[in-house]
Amino acid sequence: MKDNNKIKDVSMTTLGGVGEIGKNMWVLEIGDEMLIIDSGVKFPENDLLGIDLVIPDFDYVIKNKDKINGIVLTHGHLDHIGALPYLLKEINAPIYGTKLTLGLLEGNLKEHRLLKDTRLKVVNSGKKYQVGSFEVEFIRVNHSIADTCALAIHTPLGPIVYASDFKFDQTPIDGQVADFHKLAELGDSEEGVLALFSDSTNVEREGYTLSEKVVGETVEEIFRGARERIIVATFASNIHRVQQIVDAAFKYNRKIAFTGRSMINNVDIARRLGYLQVPDDMIVDIRDCSDLPDSKVTLLTTGSQGEPYAALTRMARGDHYHINIKKGDTVMISASAIPGNEKFVGQTINKLYRRGANVIYEDVSGVHVSGHASQEELKLMLNLVKPKYFVPVHGEYRHLYKHADLAEKNGIPKDNIYIADVGDKINFSEDKVSKAEKIQSGDVLIDGLGIGDVGNIVLRDRKLLSEDGIIIVVVTIDKHGNILVGPDIITRGFVYIRESEELIESATKRVERALKDCEENNVTEWSVLKDTIRKSLNNYIYQKIKRNPMILPVIMEV
Amino acid sequence: MKDNNKIKDVSMTTLGGVGEIGKNMWVLEIGDEMLIIDSGVKFPENDLLGIDLVIPDFDYVIKNKDKINGIVLTHGHLDHIGALPYLLKEINAPIYGTKLTLGLLEGNLKEHRLLKDTRLKVVNSGKKYQVGSFEVEFIRVNHSIADTCALAIHTPLGPIVYASDFKFDQTPIDGQVADFHKLAELGDSEEGVLALFSDSTNVEREGYTLSEKVVGETVEEIFRGARERIIVATFASNIHRVQQIVDAAFKYNRKIAFTGRSMINNVDIARRLGYLQVPDDMIVDIRDCSDLPDSKVTLLTTGSQGEPYAALTRMARGDHYHINIKKGDTVMISASAIPGNEKFVGQTINKLYRRGANVIYEDVSGVHVSGHASQEELKLMLNLVKPKYFVPVHGEYRHLYKHADLAEKNGIPKDNIYIADVGDKINFSEDKVSKAEKIQSGDVLIDGLGIGDVGNIVLRDRKLLSEDGIIIVVVTIDKHGNILVGPDIITRGFVYIRESEELIESATKRVERALKDCEENNVTEWSVLKDTIRKSLNNYIYQKIKRNPMILPVIMEV
Repeated sequence: MKDNNKIKDVSMTTLGGVGEIGKNMWVLEIGDEMLIIDSGVKFPENDLLGIDLVIPDFDYVIKNKDKINGIVLTHGHLDHIGALPYLLKEINAPIYGTKLTLGLLEGNLKEHRLLKDTRLKVVNSGKKYQVGSFEVEFIRVNHSIADTCALAIHTPLGPIVYASDFKFDQTPIDGQVADFHKLAELGDSEEGVLALFSDSTNVEREGYTLSEKVVGETVEEIFRGARERIIVATFASNIHRVQQIVDAAFKYNRKIAFTGRSMINNVDIARRLGYLQVPDDMIVDIRDCSDLPDSKVTLLTTGSQGEPYAALTRMARGDHYHINIKKGDTVMISASAIPGNEKFVGQTINKLYRRGANVIYEDVSGVHVSGHASQEELKLMLNLVKPKYFVPVHGEYRHLYKHADLAEKNGIPKDNIYIADVGDKINFSEDKVSKAEKIQSGDVLIDGLGIGDVGNIVLRDRKLLSEDGIIIVVVTIDKHGNILVGPDIITRGFVYIRESEELIESATKRVERALKDCEENNVTEWSVLKDTIRKSLNNYIYQKIKRNPMILPVIMEV
Repeated sequence: MKDNNKIKDVSMTTLGGVGEIGKNMWVLEIGDEMLIIDSGVKFPENDLLGIDLVIPDFDYVIKNKDKINGIVLTHGHLDHIGALPYLLKEINAPIYGTKLTLGLLEGNLKEHRLLKDTRLKVVNSGKKYQVGSFEVEFIRVNHSIADTCALAIHTPLGPIVYASDFKFDQTPIDGQVADFHKLAELGDSEEGVLALFSDSTNVEREGYTLSEKVVGETVEEIFRGARERIIVATFASNIHRVQQIVDAAFKYNRKIAFTGRSMINNVDIARRLGYLQVPDDMIVDIRDCSDLPDSKVTLLTTGSQGEPYAALTRMARGDHYHINIKKGDTVMISASAIPGNEKFVGQTINKLYRRGANVIYEDVSGVHVSGHASQEELKLMLNLVKPKYFVPVHGEYRHLYKHADLAEKNGIPKDNIYIADVGDKINFSEDKVSKAEKIQSGDVLIDGLGIGDVGNIVLRDRKLLSEDGIIIVVVTIDKHGNILVGPDIITRGFVYIRESEELIESATKRVERALKDCEENNVTEWSVLKDTIRKSLNNYIYQKIKRNPMILPVIMEV
């Protein structure tokens, strides 16, 4: 197999997804050929004020766009496909993924008016595809979205197995267990697996992740017990979860209404592609729910993360167009709070209780199961694939660290394990794994239609503005530097003017005096005047009420 | 006991602490006499931009200040005593609390220069005190701070038992188990307990909360295994936790350094008052740690919540003055993340790992135990006290709801349970509990030295500013409304100017054209000009980049 005379360089470069949760993207290179694996978004942390999305810095792939043979996708979650609309504005390459993955991507591309020019290639798991000069196998695994695959990509040094995200569900809803045989075959082959890239999300959890079927049992119990309306919130992309809720509704002779944009879209796509079975006559429009007896109503909604404008959050707040929560309603939040969302979810639960609903959530076992492998599954993956090298992916630093530790305890030599940082180009050779170089990489911030036009300075200003607001001081001067009008002080986000007239008045006097000093000393440079205004106000305001508003002097010369 | 001829009204009014976590404060009234129970702060939620603290609206007690007999305190946590410096600016009353509670309060009052004029009365648990016309018993319970008491306050209708916060620790560090006998005696008395107010924080947890001693075992194991420095972060007020770490350090022949302002203060107060035993020669200054072998060093630090400026967070970030985290360090975070802080704690852990530390945190059992009672303890409290009426306190709505449910299952009739909202004045009579009235109440926001000068308008502006920044448009006109200078556009927190010159230029042209239209139509009213500027920009900016910055027109007339 291996042609030792002219072995080509094999490298994997990460543009995101390590040391962070989100924006998963890797580039495989063999010699001069490139293959992109996934291209996801990251949701902004709290300190990224006003930012809508974060995508990878595409510099490296743009520079090398002629080398790109194609893009292969593991599954349809936004942290793996959400950056493609931005990437496809820069490069043009065929995209390979399973039917549901591409179905979801299509919806995304349509919104960006990019669908027409994109070459989408549907693949089947269990099959091998030629993507330019790359041979890629799509291997069925389980996850919280249907049609998820691990990848085996063949290189002159043996196949690389990329398994992010996955779990092993022994009793999956669609009956499709992971392709253990293929993974075992790769591990057993004479050539051996060169490297395994594996999901680290749940490395801190012992044992096995529960089967999706467990949720079905809880759902059924809830449906059996409920006498009035049942409202279930879950991730719109978790088609198997949706199916289980539909099945329970069917069994207990209830109709079902879908609400929330992404829920309606995903259900539509999944039904169209055959991933979700809902009899037409079961579905009612949310506006018609009130015509049915409460005992016949099921609502499936977005908002499981307490997102401020999602349907369930609106219901909890009492400003949903069609649904008023009332005593007797059973609300099931079939999801766990993503780190950072705990407060929002908690607030939603409190509000639902206040409106009289019976709320069933996380703390009840079986309301939700994770889509990521726990320790025993991670070990099983290692033992099936038996890779020479190991790279933990899809996790914050501590997850990668612990996954590396787990792999070492499972027999991978420490030197054969690589904990990557975003931007690392990792070289694989027959005798070692090492960093080849660091490429330009990082977060590109999306705000509205702007891509990358918000950076540190803008964010720093937003933070300043958010904490103590802004004081604007306007002065009109003549050509000789004499003050004609002002100084006028205008504030926003600083204090209630009504309560602070005195403060503003005395601050204005301060600035007047400081400017008069300048005048008397014949200081007319604008920069000095501005500095004088800034300093005199800064000190005064801080001393008076211990705040640091942004101070913006504006000088107009007539 | 009960004088049926002239029974006085008995009521409890909440100024905070129900339907929220924090700012616990109640007012007991018997006839015309008032007693204040606790007066705490709440830490601001994320949406309270720039706010430092939240305190109760004191309107009700200020209006009735002549009726106030005194203030009684249950324990020294800030959510029970932190608002006193603000309250004491408005009213003057003696304050009763145990030694440690008042010791911690003293520090707080000193910072506000209020200590001199305050009457502090040290009480002992197990004793009865006359506070004006009120008879108050302080009853020992366990909690995550030493010297915590429940209160029994005698009324003509029988005693009210106020138990927030508490747990029952059967093996407490100081050997002082809760005063079960007193609680039982109250429950057994012929008169009977009128009402129980009880801690709802952990009502969602089954079973018993683990004993503080469990943490000691984990701590010892860690000390036994560690070869180099040990750094422990915990809540500074958890003196028993601190004691256990000191004990382990002593046993393994290590010195100890304290870092972080509140840690140093609390250790100092606790040692001085006899609540914490640390041999003098064990303590080293943090600056001298580097002179010791790593195997002799223990550091006890603040920062268990990932607070941006706390000592541990600085170490993780690499900007602590004296301590650089290095390979071999063991860092133990002996606390659980308070809801909302999960992300910050996670970030700190990741950074510590990156610096090579071995981090031990929440997921390891026994690293932390809660200070609040779980279901079995809550039931025990109900069964000991056997109250006629029950009011769940100290919890978000869902906690109060579930605690009410638990009490009902424990035999309290539904009609005898009252779930309170902030501002409810609850009347107790021999045959029912009911709402007497709703008093003025709510959140007063503290920003810097300002008390209540930041309200909804200011917060709304800060939110707007934080999301898309501000565009300021300045125009100078003459007396006839002709434009002399401008329009000039200045932005902050909006976009990188360098990248968006074109946008700003074309926006300026837009405003120019709109103003010219006004000029041609002889429109000179400032309000119309401002509106014109606002609208022309708003639409243009949104259409161009889908953002909604605040737009602030400024007109100067020369």
